[in-house]
Amino acid sequence: MLALRPAKSCCIGIGRNTCRGYSSLTSTQAQKFTINGDRLWNDIHNTAQWSAPNATTEAGGLSRLSGTSYDKKARDWFRDQVKALGAETYTVNATGSQFATFPGKGEVPPIAMGSHLDSVATGGRFDGPLGVLGALEVVRSMKEQAIETFAPITLINWTNEEGARFFPPLGSSCVYAGQSSVNAAHESKANDGGSDTLGAALASIGYVGSGPNTFQEFPISAHFEIHVEQQTTLEAAGKPVGWVEGWQGISVLEMTFHGEDGHANTYPMERRKDSLVTAAKTIADIEDLPSTHGGFTTVTSILSGPVGCCNIQSWTKIVFCLMHPDSGKLAAMNQDVEARAVSRAAAAKVKLDNARIMHSEPGKFWPEAVECVKRACGDKGIGADTLTAHDSTMTTLVCPTAMVFARAKDGVSHAAKEWTSKEDCAESALVLGKSVLEFDYLLQHDMTADAFSQ
Amino acid sequence: MLALRPAKSCCIGIGRNTCRGYSSLTSTQAQKFTINGDRLWNDIHNTAQWSAPNATTEAGGLSRLSGTSYDKKARDWFRDQVKALGAETYTVNATGSQFATFPGKGEVPPIAMGSHLDSVATGGRFDGPLGVLGALEVVRSMKEQAIETFAPITLINWTNEEGARFFPPLGSSCVYAGQSSVNAAHESKANDGGSDTLGAALASIGYVGSGPNTFQEFPISAHFEIHVEQQTTLEAAGKPVGWVEGWQGISVLEMTFHGEDGHANTYPMERRKDSLVTAAKTIADIEDLPSTHGGFTTVTSILSGPVGCCNIQSWTKIVFCLMHPDSGKLAAMNQDVEARAVSRAAAAKVKLDNARIMHSEPGKFWPEAVECVKRACGDKGIGADTLTAHDSTMTTLVCPTAMVFARAKDGVSHAAKEWTSKEDCAESALVLGKSVLEFDYLLQHDMTADAFSQ
Repeated sequence: MLALRPAKSCCIGIGRNTCRGYSSLTSTQAQKFTINGDRLWNDIHNTAQWSAPNATTEAGGLSRLSGTSYDKKARDWFRDQVKALGAETYTVNATGSQFATFPGKGEVPPIAMGSHLDSVATGGRFDGPLGVLGALEVVRSMKEQAIETFAPITLINWTNEEGARFFPPLGSSCVYAGQSSVNAAHESKANDGGSDTLGAALASIGYVGSGPNTFQEFPISAHFEIHVEQQTTLEAAGKPVGWVEGWQGISVLEMTFHGEDGHANTYPMERRKDSLVTAAKTIADIEDLPSTHGGFTTVTSILSGPVGCCNIQSWTKIVFCLMHPDSGKLAAMNQDVEARAVSRAAAAKVKLDNARIMHSEPGKFWPEAVECVKRACGDKGIGADTLTAHDSTMTTLVCPTAMVFARAKDGVSHAAKEWTSKEDCAESALVLGKSVLEFDYLLQHDMTADAFSQ
Repeated sequence: MLALRPAKSCCIGIGRNTCRGYSSLTSTQAQKFTINGDRLWNDIHNTAQWSAPNATTEAGGLSRLSGTSYDKKARDWFRDQVKALGAETYTVNATGSQFATFPGKGEVPPIAMGSHLDSVATGGRFDGPLGVLGALEVVRSMKEQAIETFAPITLINWTNEEGARFFPPLGSSCVYAGQSSVNAAHESKANDGGSDTLGAALASIGYVGSGPNTFQEFPISAHFEIHVEQQTTLEAAGKPVGWVEGWQGISVLEMTFHGEDGHANTYPMERRKDSLVTAAKTIADIEDLPSTHGGFTTVTSILSGPVGCCNIQSWTKIVFCLMHPDSGKLAAMNQDVEARAVSRAAAAKVKLDNARIMHSEPGKFWPEAVECVKRACGDKGIGADTLTAHDSTMTTLVCPTAMVFARAKDGVSHAAKEWTSKEDCAESALVLGKSVLEFDYLLQHDMTADAFSQ
């Protein structure tokens, strides 16, 4: 059994370059493993049919919000696939995540491969689905190649990774990692300001189950995930795949400006307390932050009221994210934006409610897991950091976790024109399978904890 | 029968001060007329019970959007009242406006008193209802005092004056004045971006009727309307009432910025086409316009997407109004804001769709009608301009129209704390009744057109 340790302790001394010496796979099974790229490619495009009929879908993208009928169809398909593959157990937990486990020879917790089948409203076909379908392809190929693993293998379709319909994102993996509760996840609020909740939406499609919700209830030995890169490091290096070493920090803030109701046509400009104008100036401030601090900023939502055509806007809520690879600079960005907003609000005599509603420090994945991906990539890959959060940035809080990057075109994602080629998708699934088999070998021979302990 | 003439021709030579000499009422009926201020006050607060249960209602305001169940209850009450008063005809037209006509002795079109029972989402109890309930009180008092008019009297509850739920405002009076069609009114779109329409909402409460829709179908001799002032001219002058001479011009513009979908955390700042940032900078520009041109500006709505927590906003729609008493300066504001937005959009490589969705030139009400209000006010009133649009700024396009102002506290309206005292409400209804009786007398004696023709 692998000893758990906090993710933070894993980053010490394991830099991007210090590990580059290891390139050969120890496991013979991993060396020989192959996958069927055609079958994977077909799954990606076949399952993309379950997408809301809109401009994104018409443009070849994916619009499959969590808890919708389209999500249900994709889930049902996944359930049928894993059952047909002979999953020993198939469960749906209270937050809708699907777990399918295939037996291993040893007495250890399963090695998991997971990602998400949900997408943002204007998403591409790869962000999420490639991780689930690539993992499915790995298990199929293992079956065909009569590969028996030491650890059981668990496939996971995590619920509401995107947080596109309901906030927060990582909606089920954060419960699994002990960062939230089932109740809180069920109460996840609709980003459009409506009254729907994630819990009600999952219930409406029949996906509130009784399966295990947390790592404590269902421990795993490791978690591996394929994801499209969402930037251009691999593309620029001419590499189809990569091992993900760490992630940048992200803060999500919600600011609500409370002004005063009044008549849009008649109330004197100088007496107004216009929440929308104050929010607009703050949005410009937020866009300006990287010019001082570096990093990235994005305002992802604005809601304002009262609804009408003749009211001064008396409340405006914005949600935005600040991203930085450096923890100290991320903190400075947080302080700066708050100070600017407080100043704007005071100048406009508008009240400001300010809350940080999500925060993730930058960090590194577990080196014993990353090392497996690195060995599996061989000379076809390079190391990179992800700039966003994934289900893996949750599982890494409780167990060895690593990610496989697949090369993305132009760094575009969360857009219909997100693209990863058939060959690169296949390569990423191959790396996933080899990584899992390598980790399984190290686990079987009790080599993981020893090799990378400090 | 009164000859119609375009409102524009009425303003020549009739300035605010040049008419001040006339202060006495010609009509004996008008001189003697009284109303019941207690009854009116009771109606105002009794009917305010039909209001959506929210913070505005709790704060003593009114939240009665057009086509809601609350609107229906207020309408049903109005219907019962006019029927109980013995209305000769009661009709509901295709856009839901209620017309109740009481007979006169002469063979002329009725004199109408109208306003609206709908409110904005965060409205007060006076904007709209005072006009309808004050008119109702006038008819009640006429009945009690056995007053027989020459012209029939028509009470009107105009539909969707506010345009708060469905755009455009003046939703039925604009059809009456030939500025729109029944179909266009029915297709009025929801300001919240939802799929509801005014036509469907009216049908759902049973208020699509077969009554007359236009001035051609149902001509009136004049239209009088009480409204709270919504500014501080009367309050500053210590006057409870006023006659409304004209209105400032208003343009309503809709700008949609089209950027590009992308990932909020990972897409490089310099490659983004962020519609929300461009819109935000334009909102700040719009707020800045009065510093150059004078007038007023207000952004009344912002909608942005895609909905989510991790998307660069690829489309943002803002709706805003520009107000100016001077036609040329209003045109200059229009040009300036468009130039600034075009420039913002070009700098951000964002596409801009720009449409002026409503426009009203500044103008003056009909002097023969205004003169009646002025005489009715006597030394209790002063002249003022309204800074916004009303059902009367529609009827004035087709028939003599004037308005009575009631003093407002602090110029606040479209807010729960909008307030007009019991005494000032009563005074405004008294002025309304006297104005109508005076106009009726002039009409009977064929004095209206002669007295004010150029």
